[in-house]
Amino acid sequence: MRGLMMDFPLTLTTLLAQAERVHGAREIVSRNGDKSRTSTSYAEVIRKGRQLGAALTSLGLKSGDRVATLCWNHDRHLAAYYGLPCSGFVLHTLNLRLHCDELAYIASHAGDRVILVDKSLLPVLEGFRARTKIEHVLVISDDGVAPEGMLDFDALIAAHEPAPFADVTDENQAAALCYTSGTTGKPKGVLYSHRSLVLHTLGGGSGNMLPMSMTDTVMPVVPMFHANAWGIPFIAAMVGARQVLPGPFLDPASLVDLFENEKVTVTAGVPTIWLGILQFLDANPGHDLSLIRYMLVGGSAVPESLIRAYQERHHMRIVQGWGMTEMSPLGSVACDRADLVSASDDERYAYRATQGIPGPFVEIRAVNEAGETQWDGASMGELEVRGPWIVGRYYEDEEAADKFTSDGWFRTGDIVTIGADGRITVQDRSKDLVKSGGEWISSVHLENFLMGHPDVAEAAVIGIQHPRWAERPLALIVARNGAAVEPESLKAHVLTHFPKWWVPDDFLAIDALPKTGTGKVRKTELRARFAEHYGTP
Amino acid sequence: MRGLMMDFPLTLTTLLAQAERVHGAREIVSRNGDKSRTSTSYAEVIRKGRQLGAALTSLGLKSGDRVATLCWNHDRHLAAYYGLPCSGFVLHTLNLRLHCDELAYIASHAGDRVILVDKSLLPVLEGFRARTKIEHVLVISDDGVAPEGMLDFDALIAAHEPAPFADVTDENQAAALCYTSGTTGKPKGVLYSHRSLVLHTLGGGSGNMLPMSMTDTVMPVVPMFHANAWGIPFIAAMVGARQVLPGPFLDPASLVDLFENEKVTVTAGVPTIWLGILQFLDANPGHDLSLIRYMLVGGSAVPESLIRAYQERHHMRIVQGWGMTEMSPLGSVACDRADLVSASDDERYAYRATQGIPGPFVEIRAVNEAGETQWDGASMGELEVRGPWIVGRYYEDEEAADKFTSDGWFRTGDIVTIGADGRITVQDRSKDLVKSGGEWISSVHLENFLMGHPDVAEAAVIGIQHPRWAERPLALIVARNGAAVEPESLKAHVLTHFPKWWVPDDFLAIDALPKTGTGKVRKTELRARFAEHYGTP
Repeated sequence: MRGLMMDFPLTLTTLLAQAERVHGAREIVSRNGDKSRTSTSYAEVIRKGRQLGAALTSLGLKSGDRVATLCWNHDRHLAAYYGLPCSGFVLHTLNLRLHCDELAYIASHAGDRVILVDKSLLPVLEGFRARTKIEHVLVISDDGVAPEGMLDFDALIAAHEPAPFADVTDENQAAALCYTSGTTGKPKGVLYSHRSLVLHTLGGGSGNMLPMSMTDTVMPVVPMFHANAWGIPFIAAMVGARQVLPGPFLDPASLVDLFENEKVTVTAGVPTIWLGILQFLDANPGHDLSLIRYMLVGGSAVPESLIRAYQERHHMRIVQGWGMTEMSPLGSVACDRADLVSASDDERYAYRATQGIPGPFVEIRAVNEAGETQWDGASMGELEVRGPWIVGRYYEDEEAADKFTSDGWFRTGDIVTIGADGRITVQDRSKDLVKSGGEWISSVHLENFLMGHPDVAEAAVIGIQHPRWAERPLALIVARNGAAVEPESLKAHVLTHFPKWWVPDDFLAIDALPKTGTGKVRKTELRARFAEHYGTP
Repeated sequence: MRGLMMDFPLTLTTLLAQAERVHGAREIVSRNGDKSRTSTSYAEVIRKGRQLGAALTSLGLKSGDRVATLCWNHDRHLAAYYGLPCSGFVLHTLNLRLHCDELAYIASHAGDRVILVDKSLLPVLEGFRARTKIEHVLVISDDGVAPEGMLDFDALIAAHEPAPFADVTDENQAAALCYTSGTTGKPKGVLYSHRSLVLHTLGGGSGNMLPMSMTDTVMPVVPMFHANAWGIPFIAAMVGARQVLPGPFLDPASLVDLFENEKVTVTAGVPTIWLGILQFLDANPGHDLSLIRYMLVGGSAVPESLIRAYQERHHMRIVQGWGMTEMSPLGSVACDRADLVSASDDERYAYRATQGIPGPFVEIRAVNEAGETQWDGASMGELEVRGPWIVGRYYEDEEAADKFTSDGWFRTGDIVTIGADGRITVQDRSKDLVKSGGEWISSVHLENFLMGHPDVAEAAVIGIQHPRWAERPLALIVARNGAAVEPESLKAHVLTHFPKWWVPDDFLAIDALPKTGTGKVRKTELRARFAEHYGTP
């Protein structure tokens, strides 16, 4: 027996038509390249998006064509976020921090026909454009001057009346594309549909994930080229939240200035950003950030010490989230929970340092050689997920089929434990686990704990071939300003919390950790560099 | 070009499987018939629901069969809410306040095969059972004794292991059924699908509607037999909100007792309930209800005076919502908005007394003889709606086809204005508008304003045949305790806010207003009774 409700497709078109009309007057603040601020609105931004749609049609683009962006977080990037899917095109955000070879591969593999690029990022584009089939370059600038052979974004759209919203009747139509940039292997494309982005918006905006309302001012510090800015552009549009976009200025002073002066209430970004802001706030007391309700932090594991430091020194609430480009990206959030009100501080912080509980309609299980693990908080297995905003297969990449199980789950590559209440704790990436004498050691746990030591700014733990134990952990330490790396002191520190066999056999000082364009440590590089540190097997 | 995300159906099964496992330990408090309280949990309630599924299968029920409930708000009713759709059956909530003839029609039209009934409501069942094809009666009691020929609910399910969740592969499968009980015409069935209820849960839980999280304790005062209790059972299950179910005790003292002692943070119900509670709080100072974040009030228009009284005398926040059984039921909410922070008190209250802005994916338009109206806050037209949780057609009722436009919108029957910011103000039900000399007068506005007068407890304004103006308004007034109805004083009061031609020609005292089972004034009855009050045309 079928229900008799309207057959109404889930599209970004519906979402944004409502945002334009109902939330049209709500403000969007955008920081420009010269640090001035532009105040605009949902109505203006969406109108520009529809003008962009008309302009691209006049350039010969057809429904389903991919349009790349190479931009910081600002109002015209947002116009593309809104205008491209609603005009039938596919928004393809490029990560401006990737190597030009990766960008060449990605833009070429995606078949991007047009690119929108910040004028300041033209040198990045020049590094890979020749290896792609990009036909038109639309330059976003403050001065309205585009180089020869390129189009000025503002002038181009000003010449077009806004296109009406496309009539998207199939909710599975493609809307956006984003490539993963893992620490190994070639990038893989995730092709989001209108339906999946709408459901991610609804689920992401639900009470335990990244909730906001019309009373909020949200500032995505997470780049819009990074996994849909965790869904913030669409969640904010759904509820009419005021938005503040920081442009290219991601240094702590610039961010704190915006938080404070634009009265931000919700924000989100990777741990590195919050480490920098914490140091800034510690060194520059007197800032009033009390309007910030919470900061969603994810992208890599958040050390408990960081959560504690914000809470205890600044009364600010870091909420840890976990996700993947393949998950649109929100998977789980260590949300506030009433049942921990009577718990001890330590228990509460321990929970807040986990990856939290799965969002609505995100199904989880952990699997190891023995099958599905118990939800006991101790059994480790690879996390597998299923749900309406999780990748079904990669874009034109049949080699990646091994990322999916035969019964339709996606293999995340994260080794986790799951607690009785569904709390996920990432123990490691499966490829980063240290396998010592047949037992697993979590590099992530050791790193997070080491980063709580006063002498340590950053730490990476890798598994190195070992003649006796097959692998043993090696810790690479970036010292805090002025401090020295003292292996004995660090060993003693690790021993306060971990069994003896988890303690790395050596601790080496290193000037900086090699990182990917998304800020992840390149452990493959480190493993190659230190491969024979414990001798050759 | 199609997206490549998982093809994952939207089902209550997924929602509730997660609730059982992730939120399983969260509490559900239920008041019993003897006023004692039962403390149970999501895990126990959902387990009971799956036991019910197994029991019904053993009684011979098949997927898609309708199972009626005739119950107050309590844990075993909630088990049916969760267990029936997740076992493949259709949950059919019967409104225990309807006349037995209506209940006979509804249960018979729906083809209910089984009914769950509170023992205290057996007399209601006896009034209509003989006219239905109900095969089995499951009695919910505190004493475990069912009358001859009926089954005890607890004993029946105790004899069955929980059924596994049904494998619902088609998200459009029917999940629940509810009949409208309008003031005119025969009841019409709205058949919700898994998809529509899931989307209503996600949209209803979004930031501007009925948001809640794992930190909340929600108490639905709105009956579970009234339009899915406005979605609260499913929204709460999605986020793991603690629930408090008041059982049959809806008097102000009992409700305030639960609010206070169970630390309720979110609640919802019709205006009548809140009028009673207001009087109780005024008369019994000292209650601490400060944990209540907001009270969603809807079902009929909320007088501005009620919103003000709560805010100014008790610092409590009434949020007005509007919806219909045909809309699952949430349509719009006068949510908090940051852009009114700098507005005057009067402007803010004026907004809060509207029906608010449409929820996500609820499309609205108002239509009159001249076509679609402007969003100018002044042009009146009938509100039409469209969206994924709005009825597409009624259950086996082809006569009702005129409720839908040829281009696929649902006609709500409400005459509204729409503001530039999308705010909806219901001016009247289309059939209750007073058409005086070709101009429209809103009976609702007059009623709400009259109810702000100190002498008036309740007011109804109806259009009566008039020899000169075709129709003129007549006001029927239920005086506040001890007060007298003084037409001249009320006329002067109305004149302070409305044009002279809106002032009712007469004000009559009446002991009580006739009402439907859902608390709506039976204006057809009043119109018949006073048809010739202004003479015969």
